[in-house]
Amino acid sequence: MKKLINNPAIVVEEALSGMAHAYPHLLRVNFCPNYIVRADAPRRGKVAVIAGGGSGHEPMHGGFVGLGMLDAACPGPIFTSPSPDQILAAAAAVDGGAGLLFIVKNYTGDVLNFAIAAEECQLAGVPVQTVLIHDDVAVEDSLYTAGRRGVGVTVLAEKICGAAAEAGASLEEVAAIGRKVSEQGRSMGVALTSCIVPAVGRPTFVLPDDEMEIGIGIHGEPGRRRAPLQSADAITDILATTIFDDLPFTRGSRVIALVNGMGGTPLMELYIIFRRLAELCEERDITISRNLIGNYITALEMAGCSLTLLAVDDELLHWWDAPVHTPALRW
Amino acid sequence: MKKLINNPAIVVEEALSGMAHAYPHLLRVNFCPNYIVRADAPRRGKVAVIAGGGSGHEPMHGGFVGLGMLDAACPGPIFTSPSPDQILAAAAAVDGGAGLLFIVKNYTGDVLNFAIAAEECQLAGVPVQTVLIHDDVAVEDSLYTAGRRGVGVTVLAEKICGAAAEAGASLEEVAAIGRKVSEQGRSMGVALTSCIVPAVGRPTFVLPDDEMEIGIGIHGEPGRRRAPLQSADAITDILATTIFDDLPFTRGSRVIALVNGMGGTPLMELYIIFRRLAELCEERDITISRNLIGNYITALEMAGCSLTLLAVDDELLHWWDAPVHTPALRW
Repeated sequence: MKKLINNPAIVVEEALSGMAHAYPHLLRVNFCPNYIVRADAPRRGKVAVIAGGGSGHEPMHGGFVGLGMLDAACPGPIFTSPSPDQILAAAAAVDGGAGLLFIVKNYTGDVLNFAIAAEECQLAGVPVQTVLIHDDVAVEDSLYTAGRRGVGVTVLAEKICGAAAEAGASLEEVAAIGRKVSEQGRSMGVALTSCIVPAVGRPTFVLPDDEMEIGIGIHGEPGRRRAPLQSADAITDILATTIFDDLPFTRGSRVIALVNGMGGTPLMELYIIFRRLAELCEERDITISRNLIGNYITALEMAGCSLTLLAVDDELLHWWDAPVHTPALRW
Repeated sequence: MKKLINNPAIVVEEALSGMAHAYPHLLRVNFCPNYIVRADAPRRGKVAVIAGGGSGHEPMHGGFVGLGMLDAACPGPIFTSPSPDQILAAAAAVDGGAGLLFIVKNYTGDVLNFAIAAEECQLAGVPVQTVLIHDDVAVEDSLYTAGRRGVGVTVLAEKICGAAAEAGASLEEVAAIGRKVSEQGRSMGVALTSCIVPAVGRPTFVLPDDEMEIGIGIHGEPGRRRAPLQSADAITDILATTIFDDLPFTRGSRVIALVNGMGGTPLMELYIIFRRLAELCEERDITISRNLIGNYITALEMAGCSLTLLAVDDELLHWWDAPVHTPALRW
C-alpha cells in the first residue's frame, strides 16, 4: 500500500487537521466528534444544510462547506457512515432557528444514522427535512444499499439546495428543490482499478489488466458487470445511453453534466469523456447548459469516472449559478 | 495500460476538443497547430501572457487560460515541447500590441523552442520578454534540463503575472514581477508510482512496492534518490526542509504554499501533507499567507506530490488575490 499517510487509524483526523490549517477563514473543524462547519455558523434565520457520509470521497463533503453550499459536513471513517451523535453535534453547531436540511446518499448506514439524528432533532423541537439521493442507475440494490445508490447528484443537490438556503428559502422550499434535483438526476460510473482502504491495506477488489467494472459504486462495490476494457468513446456511450434512457432525458432537455473523476484518473481523460458526451447530447438534441469536470466525488485513488446528468429548468439553473465559496467549488 | 482514451496518438487533440466543448465562454481552441486562447483574445493594449509545454500536466497550462491569468497556452504532445510554429501561431492570436510575456519551464526543448519563437517575434517587431522558471531544488541537471527544472512555481508565476498584465502593467513591469516570483520560489516532489505515457504503453520507471523516488520530475525523470517509503510526515520534512534551506526561507517570511498532487494521489493525502507543512512553518516562524492544495501541475496518473513555497511581499499577494476566471483557478 503506497499512500502519503502516517497511520491508517487517523487518516481522517489528520486530513481534517490539514483542512483546518488551510481554510480558517472558511471553516471550523471540530474533532471527536468530527465535523466541519462554516466559519460563520450558525447563521441566524437560515435553513442549515447538512450532509455527511464516509470519508474517502474528497472533496465531498467537507470541501463543499461554505457560503452558498453546506453549513456542515459530517465525515465518517473511510467509506463508513458518520454516527448519529456526530450528526447531532454538527446540527447543534449550525442550527440557525430555521430548520435543518439533511442531504443523505442512499447507503444503509447513512440513511439509518441520519434518520436517528433527524428523529432526535425533531423530539427537541428542531424541524428537519431529509433529501435522499439515489441517482445511480447501475444497480437496484447493492452490498451497501436497498434501492439505488447515491452518487454524483449529491454534489449538485448540495450546491443547489445551498444556494436556495443562502437566499433565505424556507425549509419546505429548500427540501422541495432538493427532491426535484434528486428526482431529475441520474448517474453511472466505471472503474479501471480498485482503491485501497488504508486500514485494510489491500485492494477492495481485483480487476484484471484488460478489464473494467461497469456500474461501479464509490466504495468499490460491484457494478453491473465486468467487461473487457474498451475505448473512452465506447465507455461513454454505455454510461450515457443508460442514463439517457432511465429518466428519460428527451429531445429539448437542458442538463447540468458532471464528468467526475474517481481520484486516480487524469483530467485529460475526463475531457476526452466529456468530448464524447457532448457529441451524444448534441445527437439527441439535449443541451448541456452547465458542466463540471474534475474530481468531485471520488473513491480514494480509484481510476475511473462517473457521468451525472441533471435535467434542469430556469429555477435550478438560477440556484446553480448563484455565488458559492467553498474550498472545492467557488464562483 | 488502463486509460480512458480512444487512440494514444490523438489524446491531446481529443482532450482539447473536450475543453472546447466545456468552456466556450472562456476559451477558443485551435487545432493544428494546437493552442488555447482566451475567448476575448486579442485584448488591445494588454501584455499577452503565454505559456506552454508538454501535455500531461493538467490542468496546466490550458486550464489556466482566462481573465487574470494566461492569454494563450501551447500544449505540446504528452511530455514533449510545443513547436516554435505553434508558439508563434498562439502569439499572433493574442498579440494586443503591448508585447508578449513567455513563461517557460526550464526544460531544454521548451527553452529552445520558446527562444526561437521569441526571436521571430522580435524580428517582426513584436517585443517579447521571457521568464524562466527553474524552481526544483531536487537536482541541478536532469535528463531533460541544464540547471534546475521548472515545476510548481510556474502555476504561481502564471497567476501573478496574469494579474499584473490584466491590470495594465507594461511588458517590462510584468516581466520584472515574473522574475521576482521565479527567484523567490522553490519546489520539490516525491513519487510513489510511475505514470504511463499513452504512446509508450508501459511505466516510465519501475519503483518497488516499498520504495519512493525523492526529488522526482514531472515527467517521471529520476530525482535525488530512491528510498524506502516513509510516513507522510517524514516525507514532508524531507521536502520542506530542503526547500526552506535553499532560498533560504527565514524567520518572519511570508509564503504562498502549494501542495500539489501529481495526478493519482487523493486530496485527503494532500491535506495530511499540508497539516505537517503548516506545523513546520509555524516552528520556523514562517507564515503561510495563502495556500493552494490540489492537482495543479501533474504527471498524468502518477501517485505523489510536490511542495512549492514562494516568498511573498504585499505586491505579490496583491496580484495573487486579484480576480481570476479560468477553468482550473477562479476567484
